[in-house]
Amino acid sequence: MLISSDFDRLSIVLVATRNPLNIGAAARAMSNFGFSRLRVVRPYEVAFREARSAVGASPVLNSAEEFGSLAEAVADCTMVVGTTAARNREMHHPLRALPSGARLIRSRLRSSAVALLFGSEKRGLSNEDMSHCHWLTRVPTRKEHGSMNLGQAVAVCLYEIARVANAAERVEKVEPAKAGEVEAITQRLLEALTASGYVKPRSAGSTEEKIRRMVRRLGIPASDAEAWMGILRQLLWKLHSLSG
Amino acid sequence: MLISSDFDRLSIVLVATRNPLNIGAAARAMSNFGFSRLRVVRPYEVAFREARSAVGASPVLNSAEEFGSLAEAVADCTMVVGTTAARNREMHHPLRALPSGARLIRSRLRSSAVALLFGSEKRGLSNEDMSHCHWLTRVPTRKEHGSMNLGQAVAVCLYEIARVANAAERVEKVEPAKAGEVEAITQRLLEALTASGYVKPRSAGSTEEKIRRMVRRLGIPASDAEAWMGILRQLLWKLHSLSG
Repeated sequence: MLISSDFDRLSIVLVATRNPLNIGAAARAMSNFGFSRLRVVRPYEVAFREARSAVGASPVLNSAEEFGSLAEAVADCTMVVGTTAARNREMHHPLRALPSGARLIRSRLRSSAVALLFGSEKRGLSNEDMSHCHWLTRVPTRKEHGSMNLGQAVAVCLYEIARVANAAERVEKVEPAKAGEVEAITQRLLEALTASGYVKPRSAGSTEEKIRRMVRRLGIPASDAEAWMGILRQLLWKLHSLSG
Repeated sequence: MLISSDFDRLSIVLVATRNPLNIGAAARAMSNFGFSRLRVVRPYEVAFREARSAVGASPVLNSAEEFGSLAEAVADCTMVVGTTAARNREMHHPLRALPSGARLIRSRLRSSAVALLFGSEKRGLSNEDMSHCHWLTRVPTRKEHGSMNLGQAVAVCLYEIARVANAAERVEKVEPAKAGEVEAITQRLLEALTASGYVKPRSAGSTEEKIRRMVRRLGIPASDAEAWMGILRQLLWKLHSLSG
């Protein structure tokens, strides 16, 4: 499992990004998943300035570093990984689907710095950009529509890299009600059904069995048993009080 | 592993979305990962129109359906899952981290329809919205900045759901009732509880949500839905005829 200082070894490198909203979205996803090092290479100047000056720009954005060349931006990293939407363009690099690519990145982050590159919205990474990479990774998308929005691609990659096997959950093992409680509920329900005329004296036996099975198929949680009893008691009280 | 017809059983439901860019981003992520059913509930009308009329609006966006209420939007689903950024607000639902939540969703998609709900950018899902859910899921984000951008949250969730499953998964045998049937049962029950005095006008809203959650915790089988409706109809008839 990664610890937070490992996260600080990952640089997200945006190359020639055009849209300030996308720079902001990348920074937001980084903040969501706990990454802090944002580097931008040859951004459209206006875009970068706008993104940084946006109201509520995050600490990630404020501490973003700007570089004139990709080589400088990745100089301190021992692993440089490019992202691509292409699945079959002529590639000179190993291509790993994100889940396995992320495992390699996590493993490297334990000891040294890694750069994950995202190209421009329009063209992605150029061949020259890719030539700086050790390998490429790709989010598994549909063949007919492979190209993701930049901010969404960053979010998915960081989610996968930050994946924690046992993220905190709050699933109660639902404790089922005891048979005695279930039967008490069944009896109250039968009483109400008799009072309402649903259970006819002539077929009472078979109806009773049918209802009993139905109540058991519900799987009433122990924590709800008392509430269901209260509901049935109230219904019964009303049925009896009305019929005087 | 899911096949493409299984993907068609997942509805992405956007509730009260404000920003047309986010509706468009959700649709794009759906297209990337192979999902087609987009449903919007009470969108800001202008936002929805703008999103649909955007140049190059995807087939997903063009075939999006609009609903006036959440109940209608999820009526044909047997599993309704809400997304939330909260990790410790007082919750009345089981909360599953995305990886394990996605496994449950995949498993259910093999046989029946599932709805995955996303609330508005500002407030997320309301308690009333959540009372329609069977459980909640959460993308594991950093405690200090848990709230994700809507389009990015949709992308991450769909990436995880579309993830190729290696492990053999359990297929449930009992076909659960659809949300529309469960809600019809809930409504009849509420009617009976009002007639019996269990639901007091002053606290009607919160009681209604509590009852809705209790009914969903029952896990009513599809094969029993009609019988429960019949039981409630009879109770109601009796309550009304007595007090009439």
